[in-house]
Amino acid sequence: MTMTASPVKIAASDAADQPTRTPELDALYRGFESELLVPLWTEIGDLMPAHPRSKALPHLWRWQDLLPLAAQAGELVPVGRGGERRAIALANPGLGGRPFATPTLWAAIQYLNPGEDAPVHRHTQNAFRFVVEGEGVWTVVNGDAVAMRRGDFLPQAGWAWHGHHNATDAPMAWIDGLDIPFQYALDATFFEFGPDAVDNLETPDRSRSERLWGHPGLRPLTHLGPTPATPLLVYRWEHTDKALADQLALEKEGVAATVEPGHAAVRYTNPTDGRDVMPTLRTEFHRLAPGTETTAVSEVGSTVAQVFDGTGEVVVGDRTWTVERGDLFVVPSWQPLTLRSEHGLDLFRFSDTPVFENLHLHRRQETDRQETGR
Amino acid sequence: MTMTASPVKIAASDAADQPTRTPELDALYRGFESELLVPLWTEIGDLMPAHPRSKALPHLWRWQDLLPLAAQAGELVPVGRGGERRAIALANPGLGGRPFATPTLWAAIQYLNPGEDAPVHRHTQNAFRFVVEGEGVWTVVNGDAVAMRRGDFLPQAGWAWHGHHNATDAPMAWIDGLDIPFQYALDATFFEFGPDAVDNLETPDRSRSERLWGHPGLRPLTHLGPTPATPLLVYRWEHTDKALADQLALEKEGVAATVEPGHAAVRYTNPTDGRDVMPTLRTEFHRLAPGTETTAVSEVGSTVAQVFDGTGEVVVGDRTWTVERGDLFVVPSWQPLTLRSEHGLDLFRFSDTPVFENLHLHRRQETDRQETGR
Amino acid sequence: MTMTASPVKIAASDAADQPTRTPELDALYRGFESELLVPLWTEIGDLMPAHPRSKALPHLWRWQDLLPLAAQAGELVPVGRGGERRAIALANPGLGGRPFATPTLWAAIQYLNPGEDAPVHRHTQNAFRFVVEGEGVWTVVNGDAVAMRRGDFLPQAGWAWHGHHNATDAPMAWIDGLDIPFQYALDATFFEFGPDAVDNLETPDRSRSERLWGHPGLRPLTHLGPTPATPLLVYRWEHTDKALADQLALEKEGVAATVEPGHAAVRYTNPTDGRDVMPTLRTEFHRLAPGTETTAVSEVGSTVAQVFDGTGEVVVGDRTWTVERGDLFVVPSWQPLTLRSEHGLDLFRFSDTPVFENLHLHRRQETDRQETGR
Amino acid sequence: MTMTASPVKIAASDAADQPTRTPELDALYRGFESELLVPLWTEIGDLMPAHPRSKALPHLWRWQDLLPLAAQAGELVPVGRGGERRAIALANPGLGGRPFATPTLWAAIQYLNPGEDAPVHRHTQNAFRFVVEGEGVWTVVNGDAVAMRRGDFLPQAGWAWHGHHNATDAPMAWIDGLDIPFQYALDATFFEFGPDAVDNLETPDRSRSERLWGHPGLRPLTHLGPTPATPLLVYRWEHTDKALADQLALEKEGVAATVEPGHAAVRYTNPTDGRDVMPTLRTEFHRLAPGTETTAVSEVGSTVAQVFDGTGEVVVGDRTWTVERGDLFVVPSWQPLTLRSEHGLDLFRFSDTPVFENLHLHRRQETDRQETGR
Repeated sequence: MTMTASPVKIAASDAADQPTRTPELDALYRGFESELLVPLWTEIGDLMPAHPRSKALPHLWRWQDLLPLAAQAGELVPVGRGGERRAIALANPGLGGRPFATPTLWAAIQYLNPGEDAPVHRHTQNAFRFVVEGEGVWTVVNGDAVAMRRGDFLPQAGWAWHGHHNATDAPMAWIDGLDIPFQYALDATFFEFGPDAVDNLETPDRSRSERLWGHPGLRPLTHLGPTPATPLLVYRWEHTDKALADQLALEKEGVAATVEPGHAAVRYTNPTDGRDVMPTLRTEFHRLAPGTETTAVSEVGSTVAQVFDGTGEVVVGDRTWTVERGDLFVVPSWQPLTLRSEHGLDLFRFSDTPVFENLHLHRRQETDRQETGR
Repeated sequence: MTMTASPVKIAASDAADQPTRTPELDALYRGFESELLVPLWTEIGDLMPAHPRSKALPHLWRWQDLLPLAAQAGELVPVGRGGERRAIALANPGLGGRPFATPTLWAAIQYLNPGEDAPVHRHTQNAFRFVVEGEGVWTVVNGDAVAMRRGDFLPQAGWAWHGHHNATDAPMAWIDGLDIPFQYALDATFFEFGPDAVDNLETPDRSRSERLWGHPGLRPLTHLGPTPATPLLVYRWEHTDKALADQLALEKEGVAATVEPGHAAVRYTNPTDGRDVMPTLRTEFHRLAPGTETTAVSEVGSTVAQVFDGTGEVVVGDRTWTVERGDLFVVPSWQPLTLRSEHGLDLFRFSDTPVFENLHLHRRQETDRQETGR
Repeated sequence: MTMTASPVKIAASDAADQPTRTPELDALYRGFESELLVPLWTEIGDLMPAHPRSKALPHLWRWQDLLPLAAQAGELVPVGRGGERRAIALANPGLGGRPFATPTLWAAIQYLNPGEDAPVHRHTQNAFRFVVEGEGVWTVVNGDAVAMRRGDFLPQAGWAWHGHHNATDAPMAWIDGLDIPFQYALDATFFEFGPDAVDNLETPDRSRSERLWGHPGLRPLTHLGPTPATPLLVYRWEHTDKALADQLALEKEGVAATVEPGHAAVRYTNPTDGRDVMPTLRTEFHRLAPGTETTAVSEVGSTVAQVFDGTGEVVVGDRTWTVERGDLFVVPSWQPLTLRSEHGLDLFRFSDTPVFENLHLHRRQETDRQETGR
Repeated sequence: MTMTASPVKIAASDAADQPTRTPELDALYRGFESELLVPLWTEIGDLMPAHPRSKALPHLWRWQDLLPLAAQAGELVPVGRGGERRAIALANPGLGGRPFATPTLWAAIQYLNPGEDAPVHRHTQNAFRFVVEGEGVWTVVNGDAVAMRRGDFLPQAGWAWHGHHNATDAPMAWIDGLDIPFQYALDATFFEFGPDAVDNLETPDRSRSERLWGHPGLRPLTHLGPTPATPLLVYRWEHTDKALADQLALEKEGVAATVEPGHAAVRYTNPTDGRDVMPTLRTEFHRLAPGTETTAVSEVGSTVAQVFDGTGEVVVGDRTWTVERGDLFVVPSWQPLTLRSEHGLDLFRFSDTPVFENLHLHRRQETDRQETGR
């Protein structure tokens, strides 16, 4: 190794739980530094807290602020090879200016002008798109053209080729969610360029994936065996909306169908194994009937949510926001979340929960709001 | 033990692979008999054949023969506690007169008159109903009333309470499939009586289970975790029909969507894990486009199939039948099956395949028909 | 079909739960017979009992009766191609003289003279050997020669090539356990002949499989991924004995280590997945400390057990036997089993439990002996 | 939010793949900053490389440098509540001075003087100890005292109570491995204090866990069902050594038993499911026969290794070191690793591979060394 200064700096301290400051201790610490060593006893408080204390902060981004900036980018920033996407990411104020909504999740608004193509590429990151308003873009995944329309959820497995094409004469914006920060932190990312333009310009109403996989409980015999990610490339709003309406109607009939009174919810799942749509991402849609308040819940792992419709109040830890269509907010690990709505609220959310469940690190706790210090 | 005669009888033989007949051998065999012992060397040919040689035979039952007998039973045989069901089972000609379609599968026609109730009970046997024609009965499973209509497939997990109620003024017949012979052979059966009449006389168009579970890829958050059997109590014909039509249309567009040219097929699956609807039964629907002939396939395990629509020719081992709506036939283990149809054929089939797959005993082989001796 | 008499015979009955006998009913039943149909209502009592009622009976075979018959067979019956094995199977008195210890399990005593070879073959049946006394035979599984010695348990996966070779100048007897009746009932059997003599005459103290797989918790990197059956071809007595002794010693130190007071037990497991050694067979060794009586337990599925050492009393349903070394007994499905021993008892047992667990059909119940009618 | 400066800073650039610098673009970027937004097109090169490009660097720490510093800490730094452990962690030179050997793995030398106790605590981090030399400490895990001796590997599941106690009159040092950086990055950490002194001062030769779980392939009936982490608290050197010697001996006999010629290896596994000992950590022991060179392998995820015995050369990416007993080195994600040894080399290694395998992100590639630029 060249004789550069060591990046390690250890400060002796007078704190009660630290060893007494002496010249010998100082010499020892200098020895640690020169050998690239760090003692546990000076770091343990930060490394091993009693419960998760994320550097990420609760934060809200308002759609009415985001959308105009995206539209402006639509005028100033071309989309094409190299930059790849006209996507603008949420940067959590606690994460040092990096484009990370949470330590594991990427959330961005993407914007495509009439006739534009976002070029084809693939990457190991798992991704999805969610459409809060508008339509007109077809995303082409492994050659299958999928229409994007308000309320649709479009998962896209890691390493699938994909590009986007705006086939209409109006611009369109939507939300991208990915596990970029997670794979970045773990050094797991691979990436490959494909063609500069999308390779299928058809604009079918139903994609091939829907025709093969969109029939409830029915599996094509050509495609048996579980796949790590869902083969269904779009979960249409009409189904989500109906499922939620059914739950609330069943609740009124006395059937146990909702998470809690007035709170309907569905999870998007992989029909080949009934698990989450992708190995690292959980995605759900929640509906609050008018006058509903959810139980405060803390979970290991982080969440990003977007209001789809309605209005309400969101409480994350010690923050409270009034929200409306398109607003996005972040729930850091172990911060309790409560939703309430007077007139009804529809909410899309995604999280990194499958990572923790798969590795036996998940915990969940219903919290008494009064105790969380609001 | 009382001094009854031993059930064991061992005959010495002059066959080349048998020990030489001597008085001593005879005495040895008598010794075996009195101690309830049987040597392998006299039995191995039957017990350990080179490949499965089922005692069950290929056989066809014609709907036009079955239905009138069922209707007659509808006049002569009351339905109620004790007999439990007006169900008439297929008895494979190779299985000694027992009501077993195959060594593992039960298939029966059930018949219910206007206003009649098949009383509530539950059993460990996994069951399903399939409706080849007619409508008007609601099956009530764990209190959920489910309409039965032509083309519908209704799985019903072992140990679920269930009864049937004819809410119309016309009789209705349908097919029951169960794993009765399998659980009988293995001594696994439990059974309990419930109320004499069904406990929910509602006649909803959609059952609760469809409202909770019938939305493609969407899972209610109230019901997470896999369940051994599907929570969706009915797979409606409209979805099955559309899925098959989609596969054939995709095939025409050049997309790999069918089992083989002109042969579309779906498997009914459990949305909680993507596997078969029940742990012991595989259920599928196949559609042959006009002019299609399927590859001959041999599989470990047995199959029962019912023609849903159209006409065609069925070849099972050395038997060939011309079939039409409602006809039922049996494919014993390892007998090759071929289907062909000039004008199109829709077929429902079920089998015990999950048993063999779960226990690592499954084998499948595509067979050249010319060699199978037709 | 040729005009043979139908195997189906349906008798009208005057029982309260049967339809009234009339000429019309009789005609209907004749119609059923000619169409190979059987009504549920005449059969349900046998087919669907409230709990398993096995045709198999509890029974005991005494080693002192078996061994001399096996030795006599050693003189009169050659071992070789065709008969394949000098194996003599237990025939449950309730199973019609078939060589089936239970509806699913085969248990036999096998006997090999000095210098003899049991020829090489393979079959889909899962098998094992257990040695209650003696030594001198090497079983050769897929070319790996494995010494068989008192107390050793030797599992052998379906479809593995295997033969046996007596390399000493004394005969040897042991117990074979297989799932022959299970695979016979289900038509799942395949069989192939190999060489007439074993292909490896080495007599190593440790087999290759032990050298690769016999180190606790350590897995060779050359063999990753689970395998349906254990790759460890022998579980040596010294380990089993020590594990049981350790459990009883831990119990004395106050550690929860035994099934119940004085009752130690181990299950033989597949080190690649921690599950049973083979997909259809559970195998265990139980040790009762002097003065122990086990809780009566009923289980779905059947068990065969052999006393390895010591003496005791065995209660199966309404049967009670005093047992000693080598004695074999059968526990039919759902019959409660109790063991008791004044001076200590070592017992090997095997069952079909994995079949039921895999198919979600398993039930287990601790029974109050007083109520079982002894 | 208070009016602090935004942490986001976006620099316009003249690079070819960046939008043209204009006052309008500048204004847009200022708008992004004030709304906590970051565009993908300025970040994609760093975030989405063609293959993993870890900030972590290959690095070697020499045991002869580490051990004296640890001994010095033994004199200057007390061990007790608060600091919890006298552990000194490797700080990868690429990771900014943090005590992280890699982005996911913690590796430290821990040192305990005669009579000292490392106080009891528990945490969600998975951990293990590996002993390269010395003995005398008992680690007490959930009340079970486990002797630590040269060559022993001691896994310890997340959330298990544990403390260490030096029962001899000599100090002892060993290596700790944990997933601290991984759980830190993901905000998954929980921690609880237990008693200040270990609660079991016994010094048994075999721990309870070994007596229950240390018998190959044998499972106590009291503990069925898989557990996320291994219940066996120590894998003794005598078994590891013998397993490796057996592999090399089998190789000489022509049996496929090694990873590649001269390269024996075992993975420590959880006997309840055959998988890795803990959900986030893979642990293995490798032995190179004299004159062996391993194939260069690149893997997603990072590895830390310690030389246990012998000498050799280690090549990681473009770094090459000569290594001897106790030396520790780091392999960052996707950097190819080669080992070679003239006189024989024993190596312990651990990695985060299960994380990637569980999440379908694992890749592995055998690399031609000539092309890696040495």
